[in-house]
Formats: sequence, C-alpha cells, structure tokens
Amino acid sequence: MGRWKREVLVIIILYLLISTMGVTEGKKGRRNINRKRHSAVSRALEIINGTSNSDAYCLSWRMAVEANNMRGWRTIPIQCWRHVQGYMVGGQYSRDISLIIDQIYAYLDTVSPFADSLDAWIFDVDDTCLSNLFYYQARRFGCDPYNPMEFKIWASKGESLAIPAVLEIFYRLIEVGFKVMLLTGRDEETLGEATVENLVNQGFVGYERLIMRSPEYRGLSAMMYKSEIRRQLMEQGYRVWGNVGDQWSDLQGNYTGDRTFKLPNPMYFVP
Amino acid sequence: MGRWKREVLVIIILYLLISTMGVTEGKKGRRNINRKRHSAVSRALEIINGTSNSDAYCLSWRMAVEANNMRGWRTIPIQCWRHVQGYMVGGQYSRDISLIIDQIYAYLDTVSPFADSLDAWIFDVDDTCLSNLFYYQARRFGCDPYNPMEFKIWASKGESLAIPAVLEIFYRLIEVGFKVMLLTGRDEETLGEATVENLVNQGFVGYERLIMRSPEYRGLSAMMYKSEIRRQLMEQGYRVWGNVGDQWSDLQGNYTGDRTFKLPNPMYFVP
Repeated sequence: MGRWKREVLVIIILYLLISTMGVTEGKKGRRNINRKRHSAVSRALEIINGTSNSDAYCLSWRMAVEANNMRGWRTIPIQCWRHVQGYMVGGQYSRDISLIIDQIYAYLDTVSPFADSLDAWIFDVDDTCLSNLFYYQARRFGCDPYNPMEFKIWASKGESLAIPAVLEIFYRLIEVGFKVMLLTGRDEETLGEATVENLVNQGFVGYERLIMRSPEYRGLSAMMYKSEIRRQLMEQGYRVWGNVGDQWSDLQGNYTGDRTFKLPNPMYFVP
Repeated sequence: MGRWKREVLVIIILYLLISTMGVTEGKKGRRNINRKRHSAVSRALEIINGTSNSDAYCLSWRMAVEANNMRGWRTIPIQCWRHVQGYMVGGQYSRDISLIIDQIYAYLDTVSPFADSLDAWIFDVDDTCLSNLFYYQARRFGCDPYNPMEFKIWASKGESLAIPAVLEIFYRLIEVGFKVMLLTGRDEETLGEATVENLVNQGFVGYERLIMRSPEYRGLSAMMYKSEIRRQLMEQGYRVWGNVGDQWSDLQGNYTGDRTFKLPNPMYFVP
C-alpha cells in the first residue's frame, strides 16, 4: 500500500472517529459520552492486561481448581462459561496438557525401572485417556449440574475421543516396558463393554489391565476406591512409578505412586 | 473537553501517526514497514486473544507449577520473566490469593472445632504471611537462581510486607479460637530475631508459636522437616484443621492437616 493510501485510510478512520463522537452528542449527551469513553477505556485496559474482570476471576477460579484449593463444587460459576469454553477449545487446554506430558518424559529420563514386569503406571480414563469434551460442550462446559443418567448414555456410545498427547505417552510407556493400568470409577457392569470398545477405537491397546468399579465398590468415593485398588496392586508386587489423572481424587489418598501428574479439568469435580 | 478540542487532539494524534509511519520510509523502508505492520497485527491479535505464544506457554507453566506437575526447578524460564512480573504485580496474584482465602472462610463455616485449645492452624512464613516480592523483583522474578546468602541478608532486614488477605484470615482464625502455628524453614539461629521483628512490624501478633528450623533439622528437606514438626504437634494433641503454604512441600508429606491451601508462587520452588 502506498504512503498516500495509508494517509487517506487514516483520514477516513479519523472522520469515522469524529462522527462517532458526535453521534451521542446532544442535550443529555455529555454524560453518555463520558460513560462510553470510560467503558471504552476500561475495556481497552482489560484487553491490554489480557483480562476482563470476569476472565480475571475465572482464571483465579481455574487456578484454584487445579491447585486443589477448590473442592466439592458441583457446577462451574455461570460467569465462567465462556472463559472455560475458550480455555477448552481455544488451544490453552491442549497446551497445558502437552507441557504436563513433557514433564512425564522428563521424569522418565530420571528413573530406572526394574524391568521385572512389575513396573506399573496408572492412568485414569475419563478426561485423561478419553475426552468428554463433546459431552460437556452440550452442558455449557460444566455450568449444568452432573447428570449420571445422561452421562451413562453418552459413555455407552463409546464415542469419546483420545487425548492425543496422552495416547502418545501411553504408547511410549508400554514401549519402554511399563505395565499400564487403566483405573476408572466407571461402573463395570453397565459400561464395561462400551469402555473397552471406546478405548480400542481410539487406539488404547496394549495396556495390562482395565480396572473398573465392580459392584462391591459401589458407593465408595473415587479416592477411597482408587486407593484400595492401588493397595491391591502394591500387594501384587507392582511398583507404581507414575499416576496420571484429571481429578485430585485420582492422585490423593494412599499408595498414590512415585510421581503424580494432574491433568487440567475445569469442567467438573469428582470427590 | 469541548468538541473542537477533541478534534484537535485527534488531528495531533493523526499527525504523529503519519510521521511515525514516515520515519522508517526510505530506500529499504518498505520491508521494515511490512515487518512492523506484521508484528503490530500479530501483537494486536495476541492482545485480543489474551495470549502471546510466550504468554500461552508461561500460563501453562504457571498452571503446571501450581498443580504440582513441575518439580525441582531452579529458575523460571527466561521467556516468562515479564509474564511472571505481570502476574505478580498486575493484580492477578492478589486476586488468586483472595479467592483461596475465600475458600478458607467457606471451609471455616463447615467445621466445628472442639474449642479445647488444641484446634490448630499452620501457616508457612515466606510468601505466605510475609511477601518476598521486593526481593524477587530485583532477581527478575525468579529468573536468577536462588542465592542463600543474598536471601539471608534480605530476610535479616525484616522488611518483608504482610500479604494482606493472609493477615486478615490470620486474625479471624485467632478470633474464633484456633491456635495459629507459624512453621518456617528459616534458620532459627541466624534469622530468629529478624523474623520475629518482621512478623510484629507487619501485624502478625497473637500466634501460638513460631517454629523455625533449629540446628538438629538442618539439611532435611522442607517436606521432611515440616512433616516431623507436624508429627510432634499431633503428639502434643493438636488437631491441624488447616495448613496454608505457597509450596507443595508445606502441604505434602505426613500429618498434612484436614485441609490444605496452596497459595500461588511462580517465582521459586522449595523441595
């Protein structure tokens, strides 16, 4: 673009700017303009700071969730709907996961497994291996309260997609000799078949065991149930080198493993 | 401001804009301008998206730190210097803390302490009660590696400022009858006096005990040392209802307390 064209463009912008200023000018216009200018200035400042008030709050909220400061919540704050949407589908969620998976690779470089077929890794399933993003997209990313029946219908379809970076490290771990255990609170009787199918159709093959909640563990909290299963694995001689989940209840309790890795999940909380 | 004054102002801005555009115009100017325009456009897009590539990475990094996925790091990534600076001094750090303190208030509403003088709360000191922000500001917010001698000199001055929201909950806890224990890895012999003074000059008065690292615990990791002290408190009959710190090593290990609260700290890592 030539220099004079740019200048013409700037003059047009100037003209539009001045006419916009004039539009609301009238008898009572002054206050309106001041208000408008104020809100434009504060919006500009928000954009420059990268945060609107609501985004700033939702970022704090998300951070508090990930650091396990926020517990027992049933829905995300309604004002965070769009923020969580932006986070989940705008790229940052994937970036966050990639950086965590990088930490797993870095950790792997520092350990020396015994290679006696008892070196184990544990992965949670929902939103660790398989993403329920499509399901939560239709539930305002967690603004709607959890509905167990609806979720069961969704999970029965076996249409959850693999989380790519997790699938990659899953293969790597099997390749270097770890026994990968998939440990999920999903009900074995009603969701067993669909879960196995979904894992296969997303490429999760070669794991050692898929451990689902059998009738005797119904009613136990995820943390209690998973602690008990890990205790049994320990008893069978397994050493849990790593434990990966999107919920703190996957990673806390007893026998949590040598290292835990918390994947992000701002959409729901499992106690 | 009158309408004509605004118009004059806009014309001046226009003039400045055009002259700036002209400055780099010359024989080889075209490429410079294109580059400038490109970088201005991408910067604008970054601002609109709220993230530059570097900001997106640093946000992932900060999230990984807070979720305890990133361990044993000695300095923050150099490209995150400005991001961490913006976070620490731009308001979001304070907002994050406030939301966590809100969770403490909410938790307090749900508990029924025994009121037998054995209901305890534990607070860490550095960057939990007292902020070392001024110190780290001069060390590029954690880009420079930790220097124990330098830090000791800083801490000896007793010039750290209270973190206001923490001071507030500190008073509230004492008011409702908790015995507040301050538990710090600071060396008792060399920093005892300065720490007591600093706490007093920042308003931290009325706590039950300040427990500093005595010679017998030198060399222990923060996690081991603090677990051992908490074990002793348990033995003395105390029930730890809450445990607040900026490091995961304050909150992990044994006898961690009924609830833990992780305050943000993207500037340094204590094992």
